[in-house]
Amino acid sequence: FDDTAAEAARARQLDLTKPPGSLGRLEDLAVFLAGWQGRVRPAIDHAQALVFAGNHGICAQGVNPFPQAVTAQMVANFEAGGAAINQLCALNGAALSVVPLELDRPTRDFTDGPAMDEAETLAAMQAGAAAVAPEADVLILGEMGIGNSTVAAALAHAVFGGEARGWVGRGTGSDTPAIAHKAEVVAHGVARHAGSSGLGWLSAVGGREQAAICGAVLAARLRRIPVLLDGFICTASVAPLWAADPALLDHCLIGHASAEPGHRGMTEAMDKRPILDLGMALGEGSGAALALGVLRGALACHNGMATFAEAGVSGG
Amino acid sequence: FDDTAAEAARARQLDLTKPPGSLGRLEDLAVFLAGWQGRVRPAIDHAQALVFAGNHGICAQGVNPFPQAVTAQMVANFEAGGAAINQLCALNGAALSVVPLELDRPTRDFTDGPAMDEAETLAAMQAGAAAVAPEADVLILGEMGIGNSTVAAALAHAVFGGEARGWVGRGTGSDTPAIAHKAEVVAHGVARHAGSSGLGWLSAVGGREQAAICGAVLAARLRRIPVLLDGFICTASVAPLWAADPALLDHCLIGHASAEPGHRGMTEAMDKRPILDLGMALGEGSGAALALGVLRGALACHNGMATFAEAGVSGG
Repeated sequence: FDDTAAEAARARQLDLTKPPGSLGRLEDLAVFLAGWQGRVRPAIDHAQALVFAGNHGICAQGVNPFPQAVTAQMVANFEAGGAAINQLCALNGAALSVVPLELDRPTRDFTDGPAMDEAETLAAMQAGAAAVAPEADVLILGEMGIGNSTVAAALAHAVFGGEARGWVGRGTGSDTPAIAHKAEVVAHGVARHAGSSGLGWLSAVGGREQAAICGAVLAARLRRIPVLLDGFICTASVAPLWAADPALLDHCLIGHASAEPGHRGMTEAMDKRPILDLGMALGEGSGAALALGVLRGALACHNGMATFAEAGVSGG
Repeated sequence: FDDTAAEAARARQLDLTKPPGSLGRLEDLAVFLAGWQGRVRPAIDHAQALVFAGNHGICAQGVNPFPQAVTAQMVANFEAGGAAINQLCALNGAALSVVPLELDRPTRDFTDGPAMDEAETLAAMQAGAAAVAPEADVLILGEMGIGNSTVAAALAHAVFGGEARGWVGRGTGSDTPAIAHKAEVVAHGVARHAGSSGLGWLSAVGGREQAAICGAVLAARLRRIPVLLDGFICTASVAPLWAADPALLDHCLIGHASAEPGHRGMTEAMDKRPILDLGMALGEGSGAALALGVLRGALACHNGMATFAEAGVSGG
């Protein structure tokens, strides 16, 4: 993070033709992007969106009403351009890539043992890191995977504690009894792996798309690329990194507040306020791709507005 | 409002490749636009943004630290393309027009008598109505006018009651003693015109840009054009219409929740939830122009996504 660029960006905001602070969060976002990109006038010329997809052994516990085949069907839908994320990336100018991760080889049921071994976890993290484009100046992360709201709840319960039921919601369409069952599965799975460390939880109860998201976040951190995380599952995916060191997520914004009830607890624990709050709970990176429009708005004002001196307006 | 089109749009949402309801507010916005535009697949081909500007006699009471000359200077800035609203309209594809309303003839000080007579009020409403383009399929409304956060607080206090101080905030940059002074001016002015009716308040304590916003909202209502109101001042501007009949605002959305503390009370009284909440308090229509991006996102998904049948995805 380039403090000099950020300070210069903050100073520029005070010169623009508006009362100081009146653009609210847009001002903070412009300064954030200036600091991470290391330039007073940051730009979004190469927004990249990555959607990682995986399958999950925990589906054997009946945690999701849809068959696991839907994961591959949705990957085909992404590739054909028919999903929500395709429309939102096209609207807001992000280049979308979909990365399916061994869909025909689901992780193991985490109530029986670790979901992944260390080599599998590292391979998925590596795939995530490798997918980050060298030219990306902002990175949008999303996911798809039948059963992965249960995986996300397990990661959140493992890292942030509390009651399992506090992290469990409807996911793709669970009703009240199914939600209670998901909570039991989460509680049982996390208890089975008690004593795991932060990143150890990724192997114990995580999944390939969660590990890939961690890998992409770390790759972006090394290259100082600001990241827009999506909602509940994406935020839970990086909880193991947060447990290892919260500073690993300093370059990450959260695109939107998910309608999944567990999301608020996570974002509060991480002290990150989501940009949008529109009752969405789709995943795919959809909330992050929509929030890209807000980032573009912040930079349009930051870079395009006249200063008081330029415009001949009194009171700068 | 076309219930048949809205119902068909709601049915289409259930066929799209996502769990029902998972796009949250985006689904409601698509259905809202379908109903007002009277087509199952609504479109935004001609987004129009109107910024009305006026000057206010209440400035004689020292309610604003800036000189009234800034209103004309900011109009020139809008015309030169240097303001926040210019950047946000360009980003989100809205055609911007600025309508200055007799800036060299401010309204009268409403602590002395009515701010405008009936003819002046109607002329400003007429100017607002006439500015709405025949081809507009969504209308963004904003305002500029030194002193008009005091005018807005007076309209809100008059229509919604409560304590004057509950509707008063920083505006363009008042400090705590200045806010207390603004509240006294508002309380005094509203008390002086006690007994006014809903629309009578527009003449009594309003201003030309507030009246023009009311005129534009009514013109849009007659033509079934959905409206994006901006924040605090824009919402207060239509409070007299709400007092006359809340249904006059059925076609209006509120673009963002303003940082001005009085805005929440107004939007709750009107039962309208703002689309964005980003701590903005600039006016000009800036929050509404940013929210246009969310409307475009809603329609991109509604019109562009594949159905379960089209995509061959299970479980629709």
